[in-house]
Amino acid sequence: MPSLAGATQDEVRRSNLSTVLRLLHLGGAQSRSHLTAVTGLNRSTVGDLVSTLAALGLVRERAGDVRGVGRPSLVVEPVSSSVAVLALDLRVERTVAALVGLGGDVFARVERRHRDGDRDALLDEVVQVSREVIAALPSGASLVGVCASVPGVVRATDGLVRVAPNLGWTDVPLGEFLRDRLGGGRGDVSVRNDADLGVLAEQVRGSARDSSTVVYLAGDIGVGGGVLVDGRPLVGAGGYGGEVGHMRINPQGHTCRCGARGCWETEIGFAALARSAGTSASGGLGALIDGAERGEPEVLAAFASVADWLGMGLVNLVNTLNPQSIVLGGHLGVVYAVAGDRVLAQLATALPAARDLVRITSSELGGDAPLIGASELAFSALLEDPAGMLRDSAAS
Amino acid sequence: MPSLAGATQDEVRRSNLSTVLRLLHLGGAQSRSHLTAVTGLNRSTVGDLVSTLAALGLVRERAGDVRGVGRPSLVVEPVSSSVAVLALDLRVERTVAALVGLGGDVFARVERRHRDGDRDALLDEVVQVSREVIAALPSGASLVGVCASVPGVVRATDGLVRVAPNLGWTDVPLGEFLRDRLGGGRGDVSVRNDADLGVLAEQVRGSARDSSTVVYLAGDIGVGGGVLVDGRPLVGAGGYGGEVGHMRINPQGHTCRCGARGCWETEIGFAALARSAGTSASGGLGALIDGAERGEPEVLAAFASVADWLGMGLVNLVNTLNPQSIVLGGHLGVVYAVAGDRVLAQLATALPAARDLVRITSSELGGDAPLIGASELAFSALLEDPAGMLRDSAAS
Repeated sequence: MPSLAGATQDEVRRSNLSTVLRLLHLGGAQSRSHLTAVTGLNRSTVGDLVSTLAALGLVRERAGDVRGVGRPSLVVEPVSSSVAVLALDLRVERTVAALVGLGGDVFARVERRHRDGDRDALLDEVVQVSREVIAALPSGASLVGVCASVPGVVRATDGLVRVAPNLGWTDVPLGEFLRDRLGGGRGDVSVRNDADLGVLAEQVRGSARDSSTVVYLAGDIGVGGGVLVDGRPLVGAGGYGGEVGHMRINPQGHTCRCGARGCWETEIGFAALARSAGTSASGGLGALIDGAERGEPEVLAAFASVADWLGMGLVNLVNTLNPQSIVLGGHLGVVYAVAGDRVLAQLATALPAARDLVRITSSELGGDAPLIGASELAFSALLEDPAGMLRDSAAS
Repeated sequence: MPSLAGATQDEVRRSNLSTVLRLLHLGGAQSRSHLTAVTGLNRSTVGDLVSTLAALGLVRERAGDVRGVGRPSLVVEPVSSSVAVLALDLRVERTVAALVGLGGDVFARVERRHRDGDRDALLDEVVQVSREVIAALPSGASLVGVCASVPGVVRATDGLVRVAPNLGWTDVPLGEFLRDRLGGGRGDVSVRNDADLGVLAEQVRGSARDSSTVVYLAGDIGVGGGVLVDGRPLVGAGGYGGEVGHMRINPQGHTCRCGARGCWETEIGFAALARSAGTSASGGLGALIDGAERGEPEVLAAFASVADWLGMGLVNLVNTLNPQSIVLGGHLGVVYAVAGDRVLAQLATALPAARDLVRITSSELGGDAPLIGASELAFSALLEDPAGMLRDSAAS
């Protein structure tokens, strides 16, 4: 049901500014006439919006390429050094931090392996890598947002990490911690599940660019899931949606880390692949890929088994969500490359109408998808209301 | 991602007219000051919007109740006889048609049992009951929309019924047929899956009124599913989403009508309950309810078994969609009433964060949910753009 609140003239202007800045952030430099055509707004309205964004320092105009005879058209481009965001990715074994400018330029990136499993040590490490990349902020630029990706269940409203088994975390107030430790002048701080950010990245800048309903599966020790429905994140009532790795798919199966029996991740997580491949798995995913390339029967059988269960669970997602794209990340992308025929054989049992519309791909962004998604989410407050945000930060 | 199109002043006015009419349609008579408070618009803007709607004949003002001293306030109410919609529900054994006025008044309702399984006979029956209820249209009123509910997979764009097993239908162009046979002056014609309409009805006028993310399960011979995410129907890329009855939940289970093995509906559909209850099931659901009340062990065991599988599948939906409400219709509402403890015991294995937020209820609207949802969807074009729609229909 649409919102029951009324719209005002100010909201229209804010929405149009947002639209134009988003086009430039995602599409890079483009002519005014292109912006006019894409937005459907008047030429003069677009000119006015561009001037406002230029006055805020977010975009600049330059002479474009001369096409045929006539005057060269003006090209509008985002000023990457005007504003930046801090993107953090807390992975199972390492922390990654990046400082990203408007338009997606990466100014600095730091990766650090976790030293031990202690919660406070990890939090200190996060602050340290954050400060290292923030030091690369161009002079005069504002930090307009921070977003951290976490392999766990996160309460979206305040960034409380409810549970992140692979970090050993329960109820860690990461959002509050980052707000305190990074101090003022860093824009909004948000924390999200890694796969929820991964699907955002794949849709905005990756394999699912032309799709509005997308499922992203991040294969790792567990299996994270992120879902977009009609271009919007499926996060549900509390922000906990998308945990498709905990669909119960095999009532006779193994007990999951979550306590339930037969969750999908007990059959398709990396542990299931390794268990099934036996001794060949001691070298990790690389060794399994080598084994598959050499045609080792035990390794091929392990990929085939995981592929069967992968396909079976995809049937559920196709029947339930009717997505255009399913993007497979981590070892699941490898499973699809090695044994895609078995995945598709299972998928043939989905309802035909939905099955015919879905495209399965391996992830284009690979392991960086959650980091890229975090940077996009950190930009969202600026992109929603550019003038309001920069006015507020100038006043503070 | 938000829309990339710009907003204009006309769109703002249209959106505000829409908001006010929707409030009156769903909430009935209310004062101008209440409308002002709920919409957040200026008093004068609301006055202007109400005048426009009154000029269109959709609402009227009358003196309200006197509260305390002072002048009685003006009350705005929808004029139920100004516009109406035709709602159709093609059930497995009967067709139901209703003519519904603005605000939800039912002017006429007809039910007819199917005479035989022939496709053309059923289509003729649909046209006949439609004409019978349309005859009750108040003089001067316009028919502003038609919507038909179908127990099957429907292409939303044109109302093609891809497959409706219980009607014996494959690729029946019901939308096109209704447009042809009902002639002009009947507004838009749409066709939707019954459970997709059921969830809409439960959220707008039923058990899930305060919820934005809702799962509705219609228990029948099969199990239909309808899902709302953040108040919007989860229909997916082609309109085929929400078929949760075809989640594969028991790889060792029965073969489903859809051809796959172990779909949820093979374990929780009415056929599963009847199979499990044995001879006690020959009297239908009523006999099973009686048996359960008398404490017959075979019947109680059948309810318990279906309740276990119901709970197990609900875990998947809770982990994936993180809904606030799950509404159980048909025999599934009865299963919950008889053996809710078993359902909740399974649900205890869902991820705690999501599990703590969900409320499970039996359907408030019962078997009429799809019909009520069809009437709401048929009103949606008028509610989106009241002035535009009535201007267009006056011109034609």
